[in-house]
Amino acid sequence: MQKYTTLILVGLIVVLAAALTGVLIFLKNQPTQERAFQPLVEIQPMEPDSEKWGVNFPNQYTTFLKTKTNNIDTTYAGASQFSWLERDPRQVLLFAGYPFSKDYNDDRGHVNALEDVRATKRLNLNLDDPKRTPGTCYSCKSSNNPALWNELGMEDYDKMSFVELGEKIDQSIGCANCHEAGTMRLIVTNPALEEALTAQGKDWETFTRQEMRTVVCANCHVEYYFAGEGKYLTFPWANGTDVYSIIEFYENIGFKDWDYPEAGTPMLKAQHPEFEFFTADSTHFNAGVSCSDCHMPYVRDGAAKFSSHDVHSPLLNPELACGQCHTDTEYVVRRVNVIQEQVATTKIATEDAILDAINALQVAAADPNADSALLDQARTWHRKAQYLWDFVSAENSTGFHNPEYALKILADSTNYARQAQMLAAQSIDDTSLLATGTFDQGSIP
Amino acid sequence: MQKYTTLILVGLIVVLAAALTGVLIFLKNQPTQERAFQPLVEIQPMEPDSEKWGVNFPNQYTTFLKTKTNNIDTTYAGASQFSWLERDPRQVLLFAGYPFSKDYNDDRGHVNALEDVRATKRLNLNLDDPKRTPGTCYSCKSSNNPALWNELGMEDYDKMSFVELGEKIDQSIGCANCHEAGTMRLIVTNPALEEALTAQGKDWETFTRQEMRTVVCANCHVEYYFAGEGKYLTFPWANGTDVYSIIEFYENIGFKDWDYPEAGTPMLKAQHPEFEFFTADSTHFNAGVSCSDCHMPYVRDGAAKFSSHDVHSPLLNPELACGQCHTDTEYVVRRVNVIQEQVATTKIATEDAILDAINALQVAAADPNADSALLDQARTWHRKAQYLWDFVSAENSTGFHNPEYALKILADSTNYARQAQMLAAQSIDDTSLLATGTFDQGSIP
Repeated sequence: MQKYTTLILVGLIVVLAAALTGVLIFLKNQPTQERAFQPLVEIQPMEPDSEKWGVNFPNQYTTFLKTKTNNIDTTYAGASQFSWLERDPRQVLLFAGYPFSKDYNDDRGHVNALEDVRATKRLNLNLDDPKRTPGTCYSCKSSNNPALWNELGMEDYDKMSFVELGEKIDQSIGCANCHEAGTMRLIVTNPALEEALTAQGKDWETFTRQEMRTVVCANCHVEYYFAGEGKYLTFPWANGTDVYSIIEFYENIGFKDWDYPEAGTPMLKAQHPEFEFFTADSTHFNAGVSCSDCHMPYVRDGAAKFSSHDVHSPLLNPELACGQCHTDTEYVVRRVNVIQEQVATTKIATEDAILDAINALQVAAADPNADSALLDQARTWHRKAQYLWDFVSAENSTGFHNPEYALKILADSTNYARQAQMLAAQSIDDTSLLATGTFDQGSIP
Repeated sequence: MQKYTTLILVGLIVVLAAALTGVLIFLKNQPTQERAFQPLVEIQPMEPDSEKWGVNFPNQYTTFLKTKTNNIDTTYAGASQFSWLERDPRQVLLFAGYPFSKDYNDDRGHVNALEDVRATKRLNLNLDDPKRTPGTCYSCKSSNNPALWNELGMEDYDKMSFVELGEKIDQSIGCANCHEAGTMRLIVTNPALEEALTAQGKDWETFTRQEMRTVVCANCHVEYYFAGEGKYLTFPWANGTDVYSIIEFYENIGFKDWDYPEAGTPMLKAQHPEFEFFTADSTHFNAGVSCSDCHMPYVRDGAAKFSSHDVHSPLLNPELACGQCHTDTEYVVRRVNVIQEQVATTKIATEDAILDAINALQVAAADPNADSALLDQARTWHRKAQYLWDFVSAENSTGFHNPEYALKILADSTNYARQAQMLAAQSIDDTSLLATGTFDQGSIP
C-alpha cells in the first residue's frame, strides 16, 4: 500500500514539474509588448526625453525615429518639406501681407518638428518687437510641453516669447505628447484641447481607447488661434467643429489673423484642421476608423505586434495601412488618386476665383468714393471664401480624409469668392472689375 | 456458393436502388431557377409580352410586376411621381420656355413607363404641328421596341410621330428590353447604345455577365439627344462619356434643345445619365459593382435564389441591397443620407447662382447696345453651368452614384454661372445686374 502511495506522489510531482515547465516556456514566448509592461526602467511622469521611454518600448521608439528621415513625397504632398509657394504660386498672392507668403513648406515627420519650427522664416525673433513671435508657437512642437504646461500653466507658457521659451525646450514631438508614463495609456496633454472638449461637455477620460487613437492627434492636428494679448492657445470649437461653425465663431469674436494688403479684408489663416475635417461625418470616421489605424498601422517584428510610430501617409504603405480592412489595396490607391485629383483641380479653380476677387477688391478699396457698405460685404465674402478654401488646402490629405466635405466646401468657397468680386465691382460701379482668370504667374514677386 | 452469389446480387440491387432514389430526391430539390432553363413554354425572339416570359420565370416576373405599385419615396426622391416643379420651384424658372417647366414628375417603376410617357403634359400630340412629339420618345418606354427596331430599323422608327408609332405599342418596359429569348442572356437591344459602343471601339458581345449587369441599364438610363430632322436617337459619347466630354461634343455639333426666353441662351437638357455618372470612376463602379447588384439584389423564394426584378432605390431594402457586401447597413444608410444632404444643399446653391445669371442675361439681352461678344460669352457659360447642374440634378441618385463627381461638377457649375452673370453685367456695363439671391418663390407662374 505504501509502495502505491509513493508511486502516486512521484507521479504527481512529475506532472506538476512538467506543467510548470510548460507555463514558463509559454510565458517566455509571449510577445515583447506584453512583457514590456514589466518596465526595464521607470519613466518619470511627463518625461520629455523619448529615448528613455524607448528603453521600455524599443519597437515603438525605433519606428518613431524613422520619422526623422521618412521624407518621401506622394502625388499631392508627402513629407519632403517642399515649398507650397513654389508648387502653387497662387498661394504667394493668397497669403500676401502674411508670413505664409514668404515661407510655406510642407511638414516633415514628428522628429523634425522642433528643428523645422525654429528654421521657418515666418518667425520674428526680435525681442524688442512687440509683435514678436509668441512662445505659443511651440505648443505643438515638443515633448517638453506637458511638463512645462504642468509647471508654468498654459497662460504663463503662452505669454513667454518664442526666444525665452525656447531655452526650456530641447525635444521635438515625442512620447510624452500622447502617453501617460507608467500606464502608457493615451491622454490629452494639450490644455487647449482639454478646455475645448470640456466646453463641449466632453470628458476624454470616458473615451474608449479606439476614440483616443483619434483624439490624441487633436493635441496638435487641429485649427486654433491665439486669443488676446497673452496669445492664449484656443480652439475655435464653441459652436461646433465643422468649418461653418468655426467661421461663425470667428465672426462672433471679430477675430482676424491679418489684413489683406490694399483690399482691407480682415483675414483668417486656417492651420492644419485634420481632426475637425476627418470627424465631420467622413466615411472612415463614421465607420469607427481612427487616425492611428491608417497612419500607425499594426506591424510585426518577430513575435511582437505593435503600432508603428513611423507616422506618415498611408499611400506609402497601403498594404499595411489600408490592407487591415481593404483586401484590394491596388483598388484603394487608385481610388485615393481619383479623389485627390478631383479635389486638387477644384481647389485651383477656387484659388483663381479668390484671386479675381482680391484684384477687384484692391481696385475698389483704393477708390475714396466706393460704397463702404458694399465694400465691407465684399470683404466679408472674401474672408469666408478664403477661409473655406484654406480649411481644405491646409488640411493634410488633399481632401481624402473627407472627400465630399472637401468638394462641398470648395463649391461654397468659389461661390463666395465670385460674390465678393461682384460686390467690389458694385461698390464703385465699375464692371471692369469683373475680369476672370486674372492670375498671372509672371506677377509673383 | 450459389446462395452467396444471390445474396451479393440482391445486396447490389438494394444499394443501386437507394442511390438512384437519393439522386432523384437531390434533383427534385434543386433551385427553381436551374430547373427553369428547361422552358415550360417557348419564347419567341423579341417577344414583347412579358407575361409570356413569366411562365418560365415566375419569380423574376412576379417581382417585376411589383414595379407597378412600388411607389415609395426616399428622403430626396423615390418612385411616387411627385412633382419636381412643386418640390423645387427654382426648376420652373430653370426650364422656362421648355416643356419641363410645365410638367416634370419623378419617374415611377418600369411597369408604369408606358402609361406615364403617354400622360405627361410635355407631349405635343398635334399631328399637324411640324414640331410634334417624335416617336423617338417611345425608345425607352416599351418592350415592343426590340421587335419594332428589328422590323422598321431605328431610322424609320424615329421618323414616325409619337401618335403613329403609339398604335404599334401596347407594352411597357419588359423582359425583351434586356434579355434574349431562349438563352435569357443580357443583351444590348437599343440600336443607339450599340452604335455608341461601336463608335468607342467596344463590342458588348465580349463583355462579361457582370459588365452586362450594368450595360443593359444603359439601354435607357443614359444621356441622349435626337439628331437631325429624323430625330435619330443618338448618345453624345463620341468624345467620351464624362460630362465634360459630352458638353464638348454638343459644342462641336452646335446642338441645342431650346433657347432660354429673353436670355437667348441655346440650352441643353440633360436626361437621366445614370450610366455615364456611375461609370465615371465612382467607387462602386471601380470596385466592380454593377447596377443590378444594388437595384436588383439576389433574393430567395424557398429554395430558389434569383435577382429581384422589383427595381427601386436600395434605400428601401438596404439589408438586401447593401448587405450583400456591407455588414453594417445601418452605417451605410446613414452614410448615404450624409452624402445626399451635402449634394442636395450644394445643388440648391448652384441653382440660385444660375438663376442670378439668367436674370442678368435677360436684362442685358434686352439692351440693343449690349456688347454682343461679351453677351455671347455669358450665354456660353450659362449653357455650360446649367447643363453641368442638370447632369447632377436629372441623374437619379442625388449624387450618391458618384458623390465626389457630383460635388465637383456642382462647384464648376456655380463658378460658370457666376461668370455668366458677370459677363452679362459687363456686356451692358451695368453693375446692377450683379444682384445675388434673386430667386423669388412668389414670382413662380
